[in-house]
Amino acid sequence: MRFGADILRQADLLAGVTEEAGRITRTYLTPQHREAGELIAAWMRDAGMGAHFDALGNVVGRYEALDPRAEVVLTGSHMDSVVDAGRYDGVFGILAPIACVRDLHGRGARLPYTLEVVAFGDEEGVRFGVSMIGSRALAGRFDGAALDRRDAQGVSMREALHAFGGDESAIPSLARTRIAAFVEAHIEQGPVLLDEGLPVGVVTSIAGGTRVRARVEGVAGHAGTVPMPGRRDALAAAAEMVLAVEAHCRERADTLVGTVGRIAVCGGGAINVIPGEVEFTVDLRSGDDATRRAALAAVERRCREIARRRRVALHWDAFFELAAAPCDAALQAQLAASIAAHGIAPRFLPSGAGHDAMEFAAVVPAAMLFVRCGAGGVSHNPRETLAAEDAEVATSVLLHFLEHFEPRQLAR
Amino acid sequence: MRFGADILRQADLLAGVTEEAGRITRTYLTPQHREAGELIAAWMRDAGMGAHFDALGNVVGRYEALDPRAEVVLTGSHMDSVVDAGRYDGVFGILAPIACVRDLHGRGARLPYTLEVVAFGDEEGVRFGVSMIGSRALAGRFDGAALDRRDAQGVSMREALHAFGGDESAIPSLARTRIAAFVEAHIEQGPVLLDEGLPVGVVTSIAGGTRVRARVEGVAGHAGTVPMPGRRDALAAAAEMVLAVEAHCRERADTLVGTVGRIAVCGGGAINVIPGEVEFTVDLRSGDDATRRAALAAVERRCREIARRRRVALHWDAFFELAAAPCDAALQAQLAASIAAHGIAPRFLPSGAGHDAMEFAAVVPAAMLFVRCGAGGVSHNPRETLAAEDAEVATSVLLHFLEHFEPRQLAR
Repeated sequence: MRFGADILRQADLLAGVTEEAGRITRTYLTPQHREAGELIAAWMRDAGMGAHFDALGNVVGRYEALDPRAEVVLTGSHMDSVVDAGRYDGVFGILAPIACVRDLHGRGARLPYTLEVVAFGDEEGVRFGVSMIGSRALAGRFDGAALDRRDAQGVSMREALHAFGGDESAIPSLARTRIAAFVEAHIEQGPVLLDEGLPVGVVTSIAGGTRVRARVEGVAGHAGTVPMPGRRDALAAAAEMVLAVEAHCRERADTLVGTVGRIAVCGGGAINVIPGEVEFTVDLRSGDDATRRAALAAVERRCREIARRRRVALHWDAFFELAAAPCDAALQAQLAASIAAHGIAPRFLPSGAGHDAMEFAAVVPAAMLFVRCGAGGVSHNPRETLAAEDAEVATSVLLHFLEHFEPRQLAR
Repeated sequence: MRFGADILRQADLLAGVTEEAGRITRTYLTPQHREAGELIAAWMRDAGMGAHFDALGNVVGRYEALDPRAEVVLTGSHMDSVVDAGRYDGVFGILAPIACVRDLHGRGARLPYTLEVVAFGDEEGVRFGVSMIGSRALAGRFDGAALDRRDAQGVSMREALHAFGGDESAIPSLARTRIAAFVEAHIEQGPVLLDEGLPVGVVTSIAGGTRVRARVEGVAGHAGTVPMPGRRDALAAAAEMVLAVEAHCRERADTLVGTVGRIAVCGGGAINVIPGEVEFTVDLRSGDDATRRAALAAVERRCREIARRRRVALHWDAFFELAAAPCDAALQAQLAASIAAHGIAPRFLPSGAGHDAMEFAAVVPAAMLFVRCGAGGVSHNPRETLAAEDAEVATSVLLHFLEHFEPRQLAR
């Protein structure tokens, strides 16, 4: 095995760099961020790259083309984690390209472009409540207001960045909006490849999303004294709405997911009281914005019909929207060709989760390679798994892609 | 108006006897219990009765028959309240018979039985978490273990009773299991009479109930990455179960009510996480125990089908059951005759809420007269209303009943 075993071993080492004993939690601008970054920078140098922390604490490794005027291609992912995380989310997309460069460098092979491998300091947004800090800056989309955000201890991002040795004034210069492409390898964080028996897949689009807060107002009453026909039960109405969300998305399961993740009877409810007011949330995602917007309208319409029939009021607040980030078609085709070259049928699938590539997709051609994860596709959880064989195949596919990629083929 | 206006005025006075400024809260063995009881005892004496606090703090008024060997008939209701209560729940069933006795006494009329009017010190169970303390004792069903119960301040019922001037050792002697009948007047606490335009009704049975704690265990997952077909969403499953409870009870709405009053995603849930575990409660009530037990079995069976189809686990804990208390048929007929004598069609209806009469129904012939309440039938709430005209009619019906009641007609 050329790559897989080493990558899993490195991921194990990074898992030990954590803020909390017994579980993986590694957030932005902490000593653990520093330590993980230094480990990654050491692996980058060992693989033949120059490596440094940039002004925001991202670690950037650079594998120079022979021609100093050559275009630059970026790859990488994030080194921070959620609280109580798994060990491959983000990390695989850093370690796999480092392994590719080590292989190239060992063979004395150069690429017709300069490859930068970036380990982003923050993607999850755990510490300051704003996510994708690293990739936003490199995509030229950094919002300076983020520096005023404070963590749970009251430390601002500006203060933390200064203590880390970062440089606020240099953030604008981090923008890499003239790169040829951004390519990210990542565990799927879902069960599609696992269910289909495929080790890798090509991402078509990073899903956009809409989030809704809904509140149903019926009439509370005594569970014993109000006959069924006269009830205006807010929970029964909300239950019907939960199923309406599910039914709509099930019928369009190839392009849409919809989830009610929270529900509560206001005030907590009581076993012997008909619920008078219920709140719930809706999360709709699709790789295709038109599909998602049509679903939002249809689900709201259906919920309003339910509310009308049940004589309850419905407050519907679609408070958050994020557009989908389609992946570049030519990059997708090249990734598919590299997969096919390994004797594997290319599977195209959307990404339901957000990724660093999303930030780049708005400004440069971007694409993602997914690798299968095990345990039903669970992620953001210690049960997250990645087989060494799958890490091997995915890294080999990535290397094939990097060796065959021609920036000139991309429409700019 | 002979009764209604006075009764509402007295209820207003009692509403001012509260532990909390601005809202009605009157619990067992408090200074407010003492004050309300003394007010009631004064009204009883003014109406021509002897009156005293008994060993448990119930106020007992006695309107003697001429024949000291005559049988005893009990009527009354509770003087305690829930937290933030209305002003007629319990209170009406004390004030209406006092008004009847005042009328009889004013006319020099005696009854062929001794009438006792009881204001029970506790029915709601707010302070010590055990309900119907007064009526249980008079029905000979008092459980001595209740004396060890403690309130939120750590005061035991035994200590509170002693401080109140009660007498623990005399509790057994309170049992009135040889009385001829127990009759209770009460606001309906529901909308049936209101919806049908009737001021009074006859209770057929005080509903029995079953309470269930259900827990659904599915599989949590990322709201963006798990396609719809592979989901085992605990909340979607629970939503279907909520609607199954409602559907079953709706189809049998003349004999059954069913309520899911609480629901929660375990751990609170998150907007972007498929719920893995959900808990909810079920409250089923019927005047007919066989109907309720059949409903419990049918609803559980239906929920288990849903769980099986959705590949989630269902834990179903029917942790509480209370049998229905049917009202005495002869007493129902006599109450109906008194209603008909007022030119009103007798409406027979079950009581979905529990009442003091429930305790007596197990040991002596018992019955209830319901009076219409307004505001959609709301109760246990400051919005509870009772029209003076309805208080008038109900009290007049009760007086007619008391004057025409013949204990000898009852099957014993």
